[in-house]
Amino acid sequence: MSILVVGSVAFDSIQTPHGTVDRCLGGAATHFALAASFFTKVRVIGVVGEDFTAQHEAVFRARGIDTEGIEHSAGNSFHWTGEYRENLSEAHTLRTDLNVFERFQPKIPASYRDSDFLFLANIDPALQQQVRQQMPRVRLVCGDTMNYWITGHRENLQAVMKGLDVLLINDGEAKLLGDDANLVRAAGRIMEMGPKTLIVKHGEYGATAFFGDHSFPSGVHNRFFRAPAMPLAEVVDPTGAGDSFAGGFFGHLASQPEITPAQFKRAMFYGGVMGSFAVERFGTERIQALTREEIDQRFASFQELSHLDAE
Amino acid sequence: MSILVVGSVAFDSIQTPHGTVDRCLGGAATHFALAASFFTKVRVIGVVGEDFTAQHEAVFRARGIDTEGIEHSAGNSFHWTGEYRENLSEAHTLRTDLNVFERFQPKIPASYRDSDFLFLANIDPALQQQVRQQMPRVRLVCGDTMNYWITGHRENLQAVMKGLDVLLINDGEAKLLGDDANLVRAAGRIMEMGPKTLIVKHGEYGATAFFGDHSFPSGVHNRFFRAPAMPLAEVVDPTGAGDSFAGGFFGHLASQPEITPAQFKRAMFYGGVMGSFAVERFGTERIQALTREEIDQRFASFQELSHLDAE
Repeated sequence: MSILVVGSVAFDSIQTPHGTVDRCLGGAATHFALAASFFTKVRVIGVVGEDFTAQHEAVFRARGIDTEGIEHSAGNSFHWTGEYRENLSEAHTLRTDLNVFERFQPKIPASYRDSDFLFLANIDPALQQQVRQQMPRVRLVCGDTMNYWITGHRENLQAVMKGLDVLLINDGEAKLLGDDANLVRAAGRIMEMGPKTLIVKHGEYGATAFFGDHSFPSGVHNRFFRAPAMPLAEVVDPTGAGDSFAGGFFGHLASQPEITPAQFKRAMFYGGVMGSFAVERFGTERIQALTREEIDQRFASFQELSHLDAE
Repeated sequence: MSILVVGSVAFDSIQTPHGTVDRCLGGAATHFALAASFFTKVRVIGVVGEDFTAQHEAVFRARGIDTEGIEHSAGNSFHWTGEYRENLSEAHTLRTDLNVFERFQPKIPASYRDSDFLFLANIDPALQQQVRQQMPRVRLVCGDTMNYWITGHRENLQAVMKGLDVLLINDGEAKLLGDDANLVRAAGRIMEMGPKTLIVKHGEYGATAFFGDHSFPSGVHNRFFRAPAMPLAEVVDPTGAGDSFAGGFFGHLASQPEITPAQFKRAMFYGGVMGSFAVERFGTERIQALTREEIDQRFASFQELSHLDAE
């Protein structure tokens, strides 16, 4: 079934210990859409400037992604400049040029209205909420956010959270949002704010799902699930790893007839798989070149990595 | 089969956000021995002072641990005073009184000579090496160390590492010892120093095993295995969690007729299980009160926490 994603389509200039790239295609919606496109049909809502050419659009089209909702506006696209030092898990923003993104007002094309799955990538929660309210009948809504919105736009964020099935954030964000250094307690508080399920990403250590009474129609399940991350000798560029995780996770869920605990867990493994590919090259390079066969092979590796042998 | 452990038997005065305890029984060899005692016979080599009473010895005896190798010396036992602040993963040492431990010279009782498994807890690598050399015929040697020895006693430590089957350290120690912020590359360098297998503990995120060509008699295996840690809403006292992990891990291995990849992985799960119990109460309190049934139940929870459902 179709996923509608709203978020940034951008250009990134990135410096890591492995090199630098200037203005490569990026943005949360881009990374998410490319990753999810291996599992299901994806539709994108975003805004780009005149620097976004047919060649860039072709990256989406090559993966069968619907770009009707990508609005073309006068000016330049969102441009992020950042670097990663030796500790590749932390991005240092050098410069943020919002450009056309500053006046972004998401518009949902009529042809997108029947989307069953909605992913609200990390943008202003006021915009997330606008989109959410225009899509009242979606089967599953998953959202992301970041420290900036948690600290400065809490009220708007809380309005969004009330309508989320799954909130997908990282460790630091979860502890900030739940106001507790203990992740289990922080998760409990976050789920009281609305999300039926919380997924916390731990970077190189994988991700944990926190389930609540309403996570599944089938009722109470185990309270936690942990998916591993692949130990990698070389992380070229961590940009977009989290969005690729989200794309793999949500893409797999959207490809299933029913959202069961079993498929939710597999979705988390697919999230880890897509995140592990994303960091192997700069920008979207690795995911663009990926095949479904490689995804399935790595999925099997993730199982070997974390599963006991049958007795 | 019997495990011989050499290390500290001590008293700890600990402050955590959950409270304080004064001079509770602790030390790496103590935590290790108690955890391992649920799986196999354990023999301890250490030194204590006059403050170590029959009541303290009874804690070991109650778990069937052989204390013949615990030397009683004039003066006080090793006494560590430390605190954990909101971030419970980091211990702040307030005071270290080595006392009788300062002149510790491990002596191996004749009755310990036939031990099949040797665990070198975190002590001066020169002492680890003395013990190692007196036990040339053990089947498996596992060792621990810490930053202090890595930075200041590198030569002695490298001598010990040459004779290790398994080195068991935490993230920060591995990155320091392997001199690389990337854990996979650091692990590769460490294994070139001697250990056939490296286990890196990630605290609340579990642990990773790095396998090499000589990890198993059966030859090359997968390169990595990840065991989860239990998400815990309440960590009362993290002291001894790593040693309890080591005890569960090594205890399970020593209880097996053969060291196979399958049993090695299960051993890592048992390590996580014992670590998760250790932090529930101050000092050794929780492990003392533990039953094998509780261990097996939590082992099952660890599987549910990390394993996909069968398709």
